[in-house]
Amino acid sequence: MKTNILHKAFLFFVLAALCSCADKTTSSKTTSSSTHPSLILTKTGVENIRTHLGTIPIFDETLAATKAEVDAEIDNGIEVPIPKDYSGGHTHERHKKNFFILQKAGALYQILDNETYAKYVKDMLFAYATLYPTLPVHPKTRSYARGKLFWQCLNDSNWLVYASQAYDCIYDYLTTEERANLETNLFKPFADFISKGNPKFFNRVHNHSTWGNVAVGMIALAMDDDSLLQRALYGLKDVNIDRDLKDDDGGYINRDGKIGFFANLDEPFSPDGYFTEGPYYQRYASYPFLIFAQALQNKKPELKVFKHKDSVLLKSITALINLSDKDGDFFLLNDAQKGMSYYTSALVSAVDIGYHFGGQNPELLSIAQKQNKVALDDAGLAVALGIKDGKTKPFVKKSIELSDGPEGNQGAVGILRSEAIEVVFKYTAHGLSHGHFDKLSYSLFDNGDEVIQDYGLARYVNVEQKGGGNYLKENKTWAKQSIAHNTLVQNETSHFKGKYDIGSKYHSNSYIFNVENKNIQIASAKEDNAYPGTKLHRTMVTIKDDSYHNPYVLDIMRVSATSSNQYDLPIYYLGQIMQTSFEYNKLPVPQILGKNNGYQHLYKEAIATTKGETITFNWLHNNKFYSYTAITAPNDTVILGSIGANDPEYNLRNEPALILRKKGVKDALFVSTIQSHGTYNPVFETAINAYSHIKSIVVVHNSKAYTAIQIETDNGKTKLIIISNENNDASKTHTLALGDKVYTWKGPFKCKELN
Amino acid sequence: MKTNILHKAFLFFVLAALCSCADKTTSSKTTSSSTHPSLILTKTGVENIRTHLGTIPIFDETLAATKAEVDAEIDNGIEVPIPKDYSGGHTHERHKKNFFILQKAGALYQILDNETYAKYVKDMLFAYATLYPTLPVHPKTRSYARGKLFWQCLNDSNWLVYASQAYDCIYDYLTTEERANLETNLFKPFADFISKGNPKFFNRVHNHSTWGNVAVGMIALAMDDDSLLQRALYGLKDVNIDRDLKDDDGGYINRDGKIGFFANLDEPFSPDGYFTEGPYYQRYASYPFLIFAQALQNKKPELKVFKHKDSVLLKSITALINLSDKDGDFFLLNDAQKGMSYYTSALVSAVDIGYHFGGQNPELLSIAQKQNKVALDDAGLAVALGIKDGKTKPFVKKSIELSDGPEGNQGAVGILRSEAIEVVFKYTAHGLSHGHFDKLSYSLFDNGDEVIQDYGLARYVNVEQKGGGNYLKENKTWAKQSIAHNTLVQNETSHFKGKYDIGSKYHSNSYIFNVENKNIQIASAKEDNAYPGTKLHRTMVTIKDDSYHNPYVLDIMRVSATSSNQYDLPIYYLGQIMQTSFEYNKLPVPQILGKNNGYQHLYKEAIATTKGETITFNWLHNNKFYSYTAITAPNDTVILGSIGANDPEYNLRNEPALILRKKGVKDALFVSTIQSHGTYNPVFETAINAYSHIKSIVVVHNSKAYTAIQIETDNGKTKLIIISNENNDASKTHTLALGDKVYTWKGPFKCKELN
Repeated sequence: MKTNILHKAFLFFVLAALCSCADKTTSSKTTSSSTHPSLILTKTGVENIRTHLGTIPIFDETLAATKAEVDAEIDNGIEVPIPKDYSGGHTHERHKKNFFILQKAGALYQILDNETYAKYVKDMLFAYATLYPTLPVHPKTRSYARGKLFWQCLNDSNWLVYASQAYDCIYDYLTTEERANLETNLFKPFADFISKGNPKFFNRVHNHSTWGNVAVGMIALAMDDDSLLQRALYGLKDVNIDRDLKDDDGGYINRDGKIGFFANLDEPFSPDGYFTEGPYYQRYASYPFLIFAQALQNKKPELKVFKHKDSVLLKSITALINLSDKDGDFFLLNDAQKGMSYYTSALVSAVDIGYHFGGQNPELLSIAQKQNKVALDDAGLAVALGIKDGKTKPFVKKSIELSDGPEGNQGAVGILRSEAIEVVFKYTAHGLSHGHFDKLSYSLFDNGDEVIQDYGLARYVNVEQKGGGNYLKENKTWAKQSIAHNTLVQNETSHFKGKYDIGSKYHSNSYIFNVENKNIQIASAKEDNAYPGTKLHRTMVTIKDDSYHNPYVLDIMRVSATSSNQYDLPIYYLGQIMQTSFEYNKLPVPQILGKNNGYQHLYKEAIATTKGETITFNWLHNNKFYSYTAITAPNDTVILGSIGANDPEYNLRNEPALILRKKGVKDALFVSTIQSHGTYNPVFETAINAYSHIKSIVVVHNSKAYTAIQIETDNGKTKLIIISNENNDASKTHTLALGDKVYTWKGPFKCKELN
Repeated sequence: MKTNILHKAFLFFVLAALCSCADKTTSSKTTSSSTHPSLILTKTGVENIRTHLGTIPIFDETLAATKAEVDAEIDNGIEVPIPKDYSGGHTHERHKKNFFILQKAGALYQILDNETYAKYVKDMLFAYATLYPTLPVHPKTRSYARGKLFWQCLNDSNWLVYASQAYDCIYDYLTTEERANLETNLFKPFADFISKGNPKFFNRVHNHSTWGNVAVGMIALAMDDDSLLQRALYGLKDVNIDRDLKDDDGGYINRDGKIGFFANLDEPFSPDGYFTEGPYYQRYASYPFLIFAQALQNKKPELKVFKHKDSVLLKSITALINLSDKDGDFFLLNDAQKGMSYYTSALVSAVDIGYHFGGQNPELLSIAQKQNKVALDDAGLAVALGIKDGKTKPFVKKSIELSDGPEGNQGAVGILRSEAIEVVFKYTAHGLSHGHFDKLSYSLFDNGDEVIQDYGLARYVNVEQKGGGNYLKENKTWAKQSIAHNTLVQNETSHFKGKYDIGSKYHSNSYIFNVENKNIQIASAKEDNAYPGTKLHRTMVTIKDDSYHNPYVLDIMRVSATSSNQYDLPIYYLGQIMQTSFEYNKLPVPQILGKNNGYQHLYKEAIATTKGETITFNWLHNNKFYSYTAITAPNDTVILGSIGANDPEYNLRNEPALILRKKGVKDALFVSTIQSHGTYNPVFETAINAYSHIKSIVVVHNSKAYTAIQIETDNGKTKLIIISNENNDASKTHTLALGDKVYTWKGPFKCKELN
C-alpha cells in the first residue's frame, strides 16, 4: 500500500521535474562526446536509468527519498564552516553531511537532468575551493594524521571519495576555467595533502589508507590525472617510514613496506574474502574498496579489478553478509560497535555492486529487498530490474569457515549455524590495529539476539559527549584485553602479554571444521603462541537432539602447559540469574577482581568453590531460559561478577560475567554446554522448559591423543563425543578403548548415541 | 493473506465437524427446554454463533486455534495428578492447564456440537470427582489459605470459575445421576471448602476473595443452587474474623467486615472504575468480576449487575485500557510484573464483555483487533460481528485522572499524555495488601518504553526456580519501600514508617488536574500524612514547545516540614550515563547506601556535591538521548548508584539510580525537567540532538502561597510557570509581583511565554 502511494507521488514529481527542466538543459551540454560521468554513473547507465524510471519501485523510491533529502538541504542553503570540532560536533557533522549531499546532488543532476542540482554542487565545491587554501591543519590534535576539514585525514579522505563523484557528475556542466579553478585550488592540493602531506596515513595497509588511496584515486579518475592514479594504486614512492612507528591505536604504521590500493586489497583480505580487521571495519572499508573498483571497472576495465586475487572483492561481499546474525547485525570481531548491520548505506552499495559486477547472484537481491534501497547508479538499476523481474532468491546463511591472512593460512573464523543458534568462533590472525587479544574466543546468538556476548569496542561512535565520539581509554584497558572475551586467560595476563607487536606475529590454526551432519557440527582450533609454553585447543560443537526444540552447544577447552598456572575461562552471559546448582557467597560489596590487563575493570560479586561436580547455571534473557552446564574439578572457583570497576566516567556497560577458575595446574580441561531450553511469556505468565536438559557431562577419556566426553540428557539419552587431539587427517582411522568398549572411526572426531 | 488461508482451513474443518457429528447429536439432547448453557454461552447465543460461523474471521480464527489446542490435549489424554507443587511445578501447571482446557472444551462442544468435547469434559470432571474427596489440604504450607488442588485457595477458586463454565456447557449431556455424582462429590464440597472451610480467604475485600466469591457463584448458577449464590453475593454469614488478622502480604484479612461479591465490587473500584490494587491486579480480578457479571446478567438479569454502582464494571474496562502504555503494557502501580498487557486472555474477555454489555463502544473493537482473538461466546460474537461490519474506531488514550476509593475521594492516578510522552503520577490510597509506599511517585514512558521506571514487584511469577514463582522477600524489603520509587524519602524511612496499617488509613489528594491546553498539561497533588509534620506537594507538567520534537516534563516537589530533615528524591532512569554537567567521584568499590527501608539494597557508586547550580545529567537508552536537569542548593548531594546490594540470590535487577539529597533542611524545593531530546542511529552512527535544550531553571518565587519557576531553553525562549500552593479554586483570581512585573490570572496555575 505504502509502496503504491510513494510510487505515485514519485511519478508525479519525476514527470514534473523532467518537464520543468526540459527547456533549460541544452545550454550547458556543450561536449556531447564528453566521457563524463564515467565513475559510478556512466553515460549509458544514465540513459538506461532514465528509460526505466517510474517502473522500478525500489529505485524509484530511493530516488524520491534522495530527492526529498537533497531538496531540503538546498532549501537550507550551503554552509561550509571553518573546521573546529571532533566527530559529533557541529563543524564535523556539517562537513560530513555536505559530502553525502554533494554525491547525491550530483547523481540527481544526471538522473533527473535538472540544473538546480548541478548548480548546488558547483556552488558548494566553489565554497570549498575558496575555504580550502586558507585552512591550516585541523585544530584538534588527537590524530596521528590530522586533516584539514576534519580532525583526521581519514575523514578528509571520506570527503574526497564522495566529492569526486559529484565533480564527475557536473564535469560537463562546468566551464574549462571553472574546472581549472576547482582542480587547482581544491582537488589537487587536497589529494596532495592526504598523500604527500601525510605519508604515514597514506602509505600503509589499513582501512585508513584504503580511504586515502581511494580518495586520491577517485579524484584522479574524475580529473583524468594518471600520475595521481598511479599514486593511488601503488602508493607514494620514495618515502621512508620508520618500521617501528605506530598509530594512535597501537598498530604499526608500516612494518612491511606494502603500499597503495592494490596492496590494501591483497593484504587484509583472505582468499575467502574475510577482512582481517573484522566485519565492522570491513563494512567501513567496503565503500571505498568497492566504489573505486566500480569506477576503475568503468574507466580502466583493462585493470580487471574485480578479477583481482581470484575475485576477492566480490567474495568479500558474501563473506561479510555471512558474518552477520539473523537480523543482519555484524558479529563483533575485534573493535566493533553493536548494532552495525547490512542496512548501512555502505552495504547497499556493496550488495548492488556485488550483484551487478559479480554474476547477478539472485540471493543478493533478497538482501537488497531487506535494505529497501539501492545505489542511484548502474549497479542499483541492475538490482532494481532483477527484483522487478522476480529473480530474488533467499540468501541462506550456512555454517561457514572463512580463512584469514593474505594467503588464507592465518587461521579463520568458524561460524556454526544450527537452527536459531549461531556460534561465532574466532581463531584468526590479530586483525591489525583494531585486533583484540581474544584467541579462540566465541560468542553465541539465539535467533539474532546475543546471549553470550562479545563486548565489542569501548566507544560511542560519533557521540560527542563521550570523549568526542572517539575510542575511549577503556578500549585498550578493557575491550581489547583477553579477560574481556569468552576465552582462556592464564595468570591474569592477556594473550601475547597484550602487546600488539607480539600478537601480530602469530595466528591460531583451524584444526577441524566439519558441518556435513547438520545435527553435529564441529569447529576446532589451536593456539600455541598466546602464552609461551602453553597450548590451547578449543572445540565447539552444535548438537541437535530431536527431543529438544533447540540445538545446544558443547565447548571443550583443552589446556596443556609446561608450568603450573591459574586459568580463567569467562562467559559473558546476558540476562538475570535464575538458579545455580551450586551454593555461592555473595560478597557484602563487590571487590575489584584484579589489578591489570582488564581485571581492574571487573567486580567480583560472589564466589563459589566447587567439589568436582557438574555445575548448572540457569538464567533468563529476553524471556528465554538458558543454562550453562560445566564439569569442575574439586576446588575450582566460580566467580560471579560484572563489568564496571575503575570506570570513573561510566564508559563501560555494567554487564554480568561468570568466570570458572582453576588454580595451580599445568594441564586443564574445561568442558561445558550452553542450552537455550525454554521460554517465559509475561502476558500468560507461563514458564516453559525452564530447566536444563543436561543431566551430566562426564570426561570419559583425556589423553594427549584423545578427549572423550559423554553427555547425558533428561530424555534418557547419552551421547559420546571423541576428539582426536593430534591428528586431523580426514582419512586417518582411530581406535580407542573406553571401559570395556572399543571404538574405531575415521577422521578427527566421532560422535555416537550410546543408547 | 494469512487470514484467508486460516479462514479457508477453518471453514473446511468446521464443515467437516458439523457433518460428521450431525448423526450423533440427537441421542443426548433429551431436554430441549433445558436452561443450559446459560452462564457464558446461552442457547440463543449458540444458535447465533452457529449461524455466523465461517463468516466472522476473528471468531473463526480463535475457534480454529482453540480447537487445535483442545484437540492436542485430547490426544495427550487426561492427567489429574495428586497435588504436590508450588506454581511453576508440574502438578500446579497441570491442574491449571486442565481448567483452561475444560472451559474451552465445553465451549467447543456447544459451538461445534461435537460430543468428543462433551465426553472429554465429562471424563475429566469425573476424574476430579474421584480424586477430590481423597485430598487433604495441599502439602505446601506457604499460604494463609491453602487449597486442595493448589497450594492456595486462590488457585482452587480459579479452577472452579472455569470448571463451572464447562459443567454448564455439558449439563444437558449428562444424566441426572451423573450430575448428582459431580455435584455431591466435587462441586459442593469444593465450594464449601473455599468458603466455609476458609473464611479468612472468602470473607474479605481482596482479589483473592473476588475469585473465591465468583467461584462459588459460578457453580451456584450452574447448579441452580440459590443458597450458594447468596453466599457468593453477600458472603458467609455468622463468621467472626479477628479485625487485626493479616495475610501473607501484610494486608488485613477483614478490617471493615465487608464481605461477598457486591462488597468486592463496591469497595475496590472507584466511581471512575479505578481498581485500588492497581491495573496488574485489576487485570487478574477482572476475569472473575466480568465473567460472573456476564453469567448473572444472563441468568439473573433482575440483579442488573452491569448497572451496579453507576455501571462501574463497564467503566473499569476502559479505565484499565487507559492504564496501559502505547504498546498496551499496564503501568506499574503497586505490585505489578512488567510485560503484562491488554493482550492477556482476561482482557480479551473484558473487552468483549465491555463491548457487548456496555453499549457497543466501537473504540473497544480496535483493542479486540489488536488482541486478534475473541471470547468464544455471545460477547465474542458481538465483537466479531462489529469488526466484520466495519464499526471499528481507534481507541484514543488521552490524559486522564482516575479517582481512587469507593466514593472516589481517596486521591487518584493522573496520567498526562503529550505526544509520545506518558507521565503516570500516583496520588492514590494505599491499594490494599499489594500497595507500595510510594505517595506522589511517578514513572515516565516514551513511545511505550519505560524511561523513568517503577521497579514493579520483586517476583518472577510462575518461574519455579525463583522462590517457587511466588513473592520474593525483596518485595517487602525493596520493592514496596519508598526509596524504590521516584518519590521523596525523608530521613531514610519509608512513608508511614513502611507500615501497612498506617498507610492504609490515608490517601493523597488531587490538587490540580488540567489538560485543557494540550501544550501545557498539569497534574498536582498533595500528601500530608506520609511523614507526620511534613507536607509534600508535587506538580508534574508536560510542556510542548514547537521548537522541539518532543514535549518535556517539569517536576516540582515542594516539601514543608516542622523539623529539620534529610530528603532524598531519586530518579530510576534506565540507560547508560553519557555526560554530566557536574563532577562526581566514582568510589573505588560501591558502598551500601543505608541500613534499612530499602536503602540496604542500594549501592552508592559515585557522589557529587553541588554548588547551587542547575545540573544536567545526560543519558542514552534504547538509542534515545535523555536529560535530567535540576536546580540544586549549595551542598546538595548527587548520588549515582544501582540496585542490588544485600541480594544474596540475585533476585533484584541491577539497574541504575540517581538520588538528589538535601540534608538538614526543613523546607525544600526540588525542581527538575526530563527531556527526550535526541536519537542515536547505530547503523548510520549519527547522534541527533544529543544535548539538553534546557539552558536554565530558575525559582523566581517560592512562598507559602506561590511557587514560580522560569525555564530558559536554547531556542531563546523563557517560560514562566506559577503554581498557587494553597488555593485550587478554578475561579479564584491571583495576583503576584515578580521583580517589576505583576501577574494576574485566574485558577490555580499560570503558564506564560516571557519573550
